[in-house]
Amino acid sequence: MYTLKKSTQAELNRVQAIIKKELASEKIIQEIYEYIFNSEGKKTRALISLLASQENMTGSGAPMAMVLKEPNRIQLASIIELLHTATLVHDDVVDESELRRGNKSVNQVWTNSYSVLMGDFIYSKAFILMVQLNNSVILNELAKATNDIAKGEIIQLEFFEKKQLIQLKDLLKVSYLKTGRLFEASAKTGAMLAQRSKKEIKTFGLLGKALGTAFQIQDDILDYEALKLDTGKPAMKDYKEGKITFPLFFALQNAKPKDQKFIMENLGRTKISKKDLNKIYHLIQNDKTQQNIKALLEKYTKEAQRHLNNLKHLPCYNEMLNLITFSTIRKI
Amino acid sequence: MYTLKKSTQAELNRVQAIIKKELASEKIIQEIYEYIFNSEGKKTRALISLLASQENMTGSGAPMAMVLKEPNRIQLASIIELLHTATLVHDDVVDESELRRGNKSVNQVWTNSYSVLMGDFIYSKAFILMVQLNNSVILNELAKATNDIAKGEIIQLEFFEKKQLIQLKDLLKVSYLKTGRLFEASAKTGAMLAQRSKKEIKTFGLLGKALGTAFQIQDDILDYEALKLDTGKPAMKDYKEGKITFPLFFALQNAKPKDQKFIMENLGRTKISKKDLNKIYHLIQNDKTQQNIKALLEKYTKEAQRHLNNLKHLPCYNEMLNLITFSTIRKI
Repeated sequence: MYTLKKSTQAELNRVQAIIKKELASEKIIQEIYEYIFNSEGKKTRALISLLASQENMTGSGAPMAMVLKEPNRIQLASIIELLHTATLVHDDVVDESELRRGNKSVNQVWTNSYSVLMGDFIYSKAFILMVQLNNSVILNELAKATNDIAKGEIIQLEFFEKKQLIQLKDLLKVSYLKTGRLFEASAKTGAMLAQRSKKEIKTFGLLGKALGTAFQIQDDILDYEALKLDTGKPAMKDYKEGKITFPLFFALQNAKPKDQKFIMENLGRTKISKKDLNKIYHLIQNDKTQQNIKALLEKYTKEAQRHLNNLKHLPCYNEMLNLITFSTIRKI
Repeated sequence: MYTLKKSTQAELNRVQAIIKKELASEKIIQEIYEYIFNSEGKKTRALISLLASQENMTGSGAPMAMVLKEPNRIQLASIIELLHTATLVHDDVVDESELRRGNKSVNQVWTNSYSVLMGDFIYSKAFILMVQLNNSVILNELAKATNDIAKGEIIQLEFFEKKQLIQLKDLLKVSYLKTGRLFEASAKTGAMLAQRSKKEIKTFGLLGKALGTAFQIQDDILDYEALKLDTGKPAMKDYKEGKITFPLFFALQNAKPKDQKFIMENLGRTKISKKDLNKIYHLIQNDKTQQNIKALLEKYTKEAQRHLNNLKHLPCYNEMLNLITFSTIRKI
C-alpha cells in the first residue's frame, strides 16, 4: 500500500464519515445505504481530488484561506466518491455481478430494481451536495463527467456485438470515458476549488486522465491475475462477462488462429471449466502479450508523471507521485 | 384534450425540439436516444413549469425582461421533461414493462442494461442543462426532487412485501414522492425563474403538489379503466405487477373477506385469466369504492384549485385551471 501523510489519511477518513452519513427516515433506504457504504473502497478518486485541492503551506501553520476552504475540499471529495459509488451500483446490474468489494452486491442481497433506484438515490444525493458547493464551473465539470461515464458504459455494452472488430483505440476511448474521465474531473475540480491557474487546472486534468487510464489497465491485468493471486477477488470476471479488455486484446493479437478461435468461442461463458480458464490465462501470459500490456501501462504512467513534473512546486507532489507509482504495482 | 393558448403550445413544441436534440457521436447512443424521444409524452410537468414562469404582460407586447428570460423558461421546462423521462426509463426496468407510450420500452428493444445506462445518460444530460441555468436555488430544488423520486420508488418496491398492511397515508406518501414531488418542483422552479414573491412560489409549490397527487390518482384509475376504454394502453398493469394503488386500496377496504382473499391471492400474477381480471375490475366498480376514489380525487383537485385561487392575478390562471380540470377527466 502507498503511504499517505497523516493529514491526508485524516481527510480521507472525514470523506468516509460524510459519505456514510444518511438520515433517510425510510428504514429500507437507510438499510441498503449503510450496506453499500459499510464496505470501504480505495477512494482513489477522492484522494486525487484532495491532493489537487491541497493548499500551499506558507510559513507556519495553515493560511486563513485554507482553513476556510477545508470543509469544501472534503465535500468535493465526498461528492466524487458518491458519484463513483452510484456508477458501481448500476454497473453491478449491467454486469450481473454477484460481489462488490468482497461482499454480495446490492442486486444479490435485494434485487436489480433496488440497485437501479439506490443508484439514482446516490447520484441525486451527490448532486444535492454539489449544489451546496455553489461553484458552477465545478458543477459543470462533474455533470459532464457523469454523462461521459454513462456514455462509456453504453459503448462498452455494444462491444459484445462487435467483439473481434474492436481496435486498441476503441478500448482506450472506453477506458477514458468510464474511468479516466472521473479521474480527470477529480483532479480538475480539486484544482478549481483551490483556485489554481488555468494552466495548472489543465495539467491536473491531463494527469488525472493518464492516471485513470493506467488505473484501468492495471484493473484489467488484475482481473486475470486474480486467478493466481490470493486477493479474494473473483478471477477472470471480465472474460466470463464477455468483455474484451486490454490483456485479452493483446492476447488475441498475438495468438495463433487456433487459439484466437478458442478465446472467442469461450468469451462470455459463465460456466467455463477450470481447465479452459487456465488455458485462457496461459494465453494472456504469452511473453509478447505481457510485453505489450506492460508497455501500454508504462506509457500512461509515464504520461501522468510527465504532467506531474509541471506541478513540482505544489505540496501534493510527493503524494501524487506515490499514487502514480502505486497504480502500476498495486495488487488490489 | 384541454386547450392551450397558441403561444403555450408553441412553447411546448420548442421544449420537444430541445429534448429531442442530442448530438452524441456514438451511433448506439444516438439511436436509443431518438427512439426514446420520438414517442411524445403529454409533457404535463413541462407545461406546469412554463405556466408558472409565464411573465405578466404589461401594456402592448412583451416586456424586455420577458424576452430575455424566454430561453431560460424553455430550458427549465426541457430539463424537467428530461428528468421525468429518465425516471420512466429506469421505471421500465423496475416494473419489467414491455410498453411505454404505445411503443416497446427500451428494455424490450435493447436490454435492461441499456435502460439503466440510458437513464443515467439522460439524468446527467438534464444536470448539464441545469448548470447552464446558473440558478442555485432552482438547481437545489430539482436535485432534491430527483432524490425524492428515487425514494418514492424504493418505498413502493417495499410495498410488495407489506401488501395488506398498507395504509392510505402510505399510498399518499409514495404518490407524493414519485409524482407530486416533481409536479411541485416544476411549479416552484417555474415561479422561481420568474422571480415571483416567496408567497407565490410557495403557493405554486402547494398547487403542484396537490395537482400531482390528483394526477396520480387519475393515473391509477385509468390503469383499471383501460380494460373497458379503447386507449391502447395495457390494462390493469398495476395489478399484474402486484401494486396496490388507490382504487385497489379502497376495493380491499370495501370487499367481503372472500373477495379480499381473491384480490390478494391474484395480486402480482402476470398470467391471470381474463375472467379473473374481470372479477377484479368488477370489485373496483363497487359503488362505495368508486365513491371513495372519486372523493379522494376531488379532494386533491379542489386543493389545487384553492391554491390557484390565490394566483388569480397571474396570466397563467385560465390555462392552469384548465389543466387542473383536465387532470380529473382525462382518459389518457
